[in-house]
Amino acid sequence: MTRWFRTGATLLFGAGIGASVSRLPSVRGGAEEEERAGTLLSSVPVLPVPTVQASELTVSPGGSGALMKYGFPSLANIKTRESYVTSYDPRTRTASWVIERLNPASLNGPSDRKYCNFKEDDRSTNADFRGSGFDRGHLAAAANHKWSQKAMEDTFYLSNVAPQNPHLNQKTWNNLEQLCRSLTKRYLNVYVCTGPLYLPRQEADGKLYVRYQVLGPNHVAVPTHFFKVLILEQVDGRGVELRSYVLPNEPIDEKVPLDRFLVPIETIERASGLHFVPNIMKRTSSLQAITAR
Amino acid sequence: MTRWFRTGATLLFGAGIGASVSRLPSVRGGAEEEERAGTLLSSVPVLPVPTVQASELTVSPGGSGALMKYGFPSLANIKTRESYVTSYDPRTRTASWVIERLNPASLNGPSDRKYCNFKEDDRSTNADFRGSGFDRGHLAAAANHKWSQKAMEDTFYLSNVAPQNPHLNQKTWNNLEQLCRSLTKRYLNVYVCTGPLYLPRQEADGKLYVRYQVLGPNHVAVPTHFFKVLILEQVDGRGVELRSYVLPNEPIDEKVPLDRFLVPIETIERASGLHFVPNIMKRTSSLQAITAR
Repeated sequence: MTRWFRTGATLLFGAGIGASVSRLPSVRGGAEEEERAGTLLSSVPVLPVPTVQASELTVSPGGSGALMKYGFPSLANIKTRESYVTSYDPRTRTASWVIERLNPASLNGPSDRKYCNFKEDDRSTNADFRGSGFDRGHLAAAANHKWSQKAMEDTFYLSNVAPQNPHLNQKTWNNLEQLCRSLTKRYLNVYVCTGPLYLPRQEADGKLYVRYQVLGPNHVAVPTHFFKVLILEQVDGRGVELRSYVLPNEPIDEKVPLDRFLVPIETIERASGLHFVPNIMKRTSSLQAITAR
Repeated sequence: MTRWFRTGATLLFGAGIGASVSRLPSVRGGAEEEERAGTLLSSVPVLPVPTVQASELTVSPGGSGALMKYGFPSLANIKTRESYVTSYDPRTRTASWVIERLNPASLNGPSDRKYCNFKEDDRSTNADFRGSGFDRGHLAAAANHKWSQKAMEDTFYLSNVAPQNPHLNQKTWNNLEQLCRSLTKRYLNVYVCTGPLYLPRQEADGKLYVRYQVLGPNHVAVPTHFFKVLILEQVDGRGVELRSYVLPNEPIDEKVPLDRFLVPIETIERASGLHFVPNIMKRTSSLQAITAR
């Protein structure tokens, strides 16, 4: 089943994160949600486009294009690297989000992962992860940035890393990263925004609780879920497609199709407090949000 | 027992929040902590003083003084009200911190609480609190701002509110607010910075977890603890004293002296990701941190 929603009147808001998550990965929708459309969208505050030098944000070979094209989902503690821009959350000791841009040129080059080491740049350390049972999971993937050794090395800063279940990291999450790269064949540019989520769940007393582990002396938060928001520029330049995924931070059977983890963008906006749609809408009049295929 | 620590070499860092919390409200200290002194302090990044119009931040009658004197503990999503400045955390739907300034002039005036109603200004609503069993607890206290009806009314915005245990709100927390007001008799100005904390605790499996309830359709986070940081300006203008409290969001026996909830400021900085000391040190060469009396 394929459902396409066109903004603005039909871009739908999720029915609360608790509900959304319990319904993952089933296909969402229905008349109840249609009714909610529009009214909430209009109340989303629009973030100003940050005043960052465009030259700082050029990440692809040849300087073609800037990462800020579709704005940033928040403006707190922004850090610019060769291959991505990120916003750091000092309380959880992980990024709030990391945005990068992929195209055929960024995916090819002589860079080699074997020369890369994890680098401590903020409040988390390699020691926090040691013996924890969690991988140091990349948010912006190393293999997305073969175009420059420095670009690849920059993905190894711990502020681009979150504690990730090893099975997820090596299997389904890796498949999702590969999907992002393969989409560069069909789209002009693939903007990828990745981040952690801390989703509530109902406990035995019927109430909703957020619960997550923290690691090591710096108490690095272990996200309950991860999101990836893909902003896909159509080759003919006519419009933008949006795909947003939420995966639990636990082992996932690789047989489950990735499309089963598609969620409405509003689910991620509500859970994270970030803004995607208002910024994207400043750049295009044609946004297609793909919530299931 | 009274312990005074002078910055910078002897301003101490707590031994991890888990440890700090489990030791609350006992008196902290010891040679082990002395050893940690200094090295960590020097690694705390200093936040730039925000470029906010000083006129916006004048909060006392007669326009004497600005709230930003000792900087802000973070620079994300800052909002200015008549009686306080606050930083909003869109993920938890509560403030990260609220800062206000008290002095005899701000405490007196004709304002009346009975004309004040809670106002929805961001992502939490009165409905989120209804039937939850939690009070809408003020972060900047209404009674601190009798000098102007608008100043008092502004403390009723829900972004100045967090879900608070009713017993705590009405008893010990209220006593702490009264203490802040009474200190205006002994100090030139009393700057009060208040906010929520989400502290980890060890569970049965020996690992540390952060766990907190969320309320209502907007999933407003219920803090596990609250902090109050008091920046006390000495009357002779010679220096600044610092008192920092952490109280659990649960009923507290009023017989327990408030001093038992004093903690090193570094405990709050580590748990919240906020910065206090580096900003204060820009304004004074004499900072006394009172961690127990």
